[in-house]
Amino acid sequence: MRRELFIAALTLMLAATSATALHRRERSLSQTATKTLVERLGYPRDAKLLIVHADDLGVAHSVNSAAIKAFETGLVSSGSILVPCSWLPEIAAYARAHPEADLGVHLTLTSEWSLYRWGPVLGKERVPSLLDSSGYLYSSESEAAAHADTREVEAEIRAQIARARALGIQPTHLDSHMGTLYQNKALFEILVRVARENKLPFRVSQDWFARAQFMPSVLGPDDLVLDRTISIEPNVAPEDWSKFYTDEIKRLQPGVTDMIVHLAFADEEMKGVTLGHPNWGAEWRQRDFDFVTSDAFRKLLKENNVRLITWREIGKLIKKTEN
Amino acid sequence: MRRELFIAALTLMLAATSATALHRRERSLSQTATKTLVERLGYPRDAKLLIVHADDLGVAHSVNSAAIKAFETGLVSSGSILVPCSWLPEIAAYARAHPEADLGVHLTLTSEWSLYRWGPVLGKERVPSLLDSSGYLYSSESEAAAHADTREVEAEIRAQIARARALGIQPTHLDSHMGTLYQNKALFEILVRVARENKLPFRVSQDWFARAQFMPSVLGPDDLVLDRTISIEPNVAPEDWSKFYTDEIKRLQPGVTDMIVHLAFADEEMKGVTLGHPNWGAEWRQRDFDFVTSDAFRKLLKENNVRLITWREIGKLIKKTEN
Repeated sequence: MRRELFIAALTLMLAATSATALHRRERSLSQTATKTLVERLGYPRDAKLLIVHADDLGVAHSVNSAAIKAFETGLVSSGSILVPCSWLPEIAAYARAHPEADLGVHLTLTSEWSLYRWGPVLGKERVPSLLDSSGYLYSSESEAAAHADTREVEAEIRAQIARARALGIQPTHLDSHMGTLYQNKALFEILVRVARENKLPFRVSQDWFARAQFMPSVLGPDDLVLDRTISIEPNVAPEDWSKFYTDEIKRLQPGVTDMIVHLAFADEEMKGVTLGHPNWGAEWRQRDFDFVTSDAFRKLLKENNVRLITWREIGKLIKKTEN
Repeated sequence: MRRELFIAALTLMLAATSATALHRRERSLSQTATKTLVERLGYPRDAKLLIVHADDLGVAHSVNSAAIKAFETGLVSSGSILVPCSWLPEIAAYARAHPEADLGVHLTLTSEWSLYRWGPVLGKERVPSLLDSSGYLYSSESEAAAHADTREVEAEIRAQIARARALGIQPTHLDSHMGTLYQNKALFEILVRVARENKLPFRVSQDWFARAQFMPSVLGPDDLVLDRTISIEPNVAPEDWSKFYTDEIKRLQPGVTDMIVHLAFADEEMKGVTLGHPNWGAEWRQRDFDFVTSDAFRKLLKENNVRLITWREIGKLIKKTEN
């Protein structure tokens, strides 16, 4: 989730308010109203369940190293991988050696940094609508969404999942790098279709519906919807980092919350990757790493009765439904 | 140049000794015998000209940073770029800001590290013979040469040159990463043909002919051939690094010599890239960087009357010939 998604979603909120869409949404929600996701997962209705999720694995050695170190603390429960990036083999080796690790595919249609970039998994001749003039994936999710041919998007994300599997990653879930697949209904439909076919849960959250009203109309009764997401944004000052997360954990409501963090070390590589972009930059990611691997975070979770869960647990509900 | 090239060339030496090939070679050499390359470049016949050439730019931020720092010392005169790698935009930005920089295309048909890998510039559907089972370029030059369809090789290296140009790099020369295009006559013919069409000089050296006897038969009278190359090999112990280069410079003969170095910092990124591979690894590249940016190297060049030149100077001879 990124700032731009928030802005795009606000725009959508103003546009998409037809009675039909609202009706569909209510019908969809009513079908899961009897039992909450928390209950379906086998916890009491008032349980506070949290996925601490590291985005952007595979982008850089610094990201992989920080995420692996964070997984080892037990305080980061899940992560997702950018398949087109050159450091994919490193995180794939980790996945093969740690089959219990909760790793998903961070479906990627953008390449957002200035001096370090990547292209699609499929050949450029095959998915020309995904490429900017320099031959890489578009820099922003809005550009990607504006230019993307939906058939090419579907082929590319299927190829990313296949490539992850070919390298020995058994993905537990899907999400969308920079939220590109949440930009409009057509893209979201692709995510949902591909996730269903792969019998994988995907990141989508009840608290997004007010800002992206097309979502409920795409979702069916068997799709699993989180209750909310937490993601720190650039309006938080560096010195308020701990306070932001602490406040969020203290006020956590019952339900399933996905706390999205971006982990890396503020080393030369990461400074190079994120050059000129303090938001989600090297220091940002170091702050996220420092917080989620801290004893203070461990204590906070314990004191507030927050239980960490994984996407694998959520995914098991899909098999139950279908078998 | 790599150890494997040496071994492959030795094999070729045993195979390729037909009278026809030797005849062609002598005829070719006789046409340039009247004037040496040194003289054609405008220097006295006994001048000792040296290109200090940084291979592998674009592979990693660590490599780019070290090479740029080395260029600034004036002691490294040239470099070549791996176009398929994700750090290409960083070195392309440097090239655009420094049009005087002597940068070539390090034509790439291999991806040799274990946890950090890359594919071709063309789509995988277009050049399937260049890909190993994991979908990346082959790990070794011998595997790449054994599997490569020559039409796919030619298309891919043309695409790499075009991509470099599209990002604002005006290449001054061509060479071949890990020497894949020197592995056999068919591959070498592609390099020569593409270089001629692009009116670019390419790395080839008289001292390779004894080990790769097909080379002279491919070369014509207008192709520019260096006199020799220097490249440190794994049989040199780390503590003998300076001694190796010092001895080489002291015994340098008149002519044009290409001293191939591999520059990077021994930082976390580079240790990750080269994991499990001390040869041409992070520490190796740090030692190369330390030597070629040292005052000792500067003094050595001066005391031995060695003059640094660039590939751009050599390339100017092509234009003279053709205009």
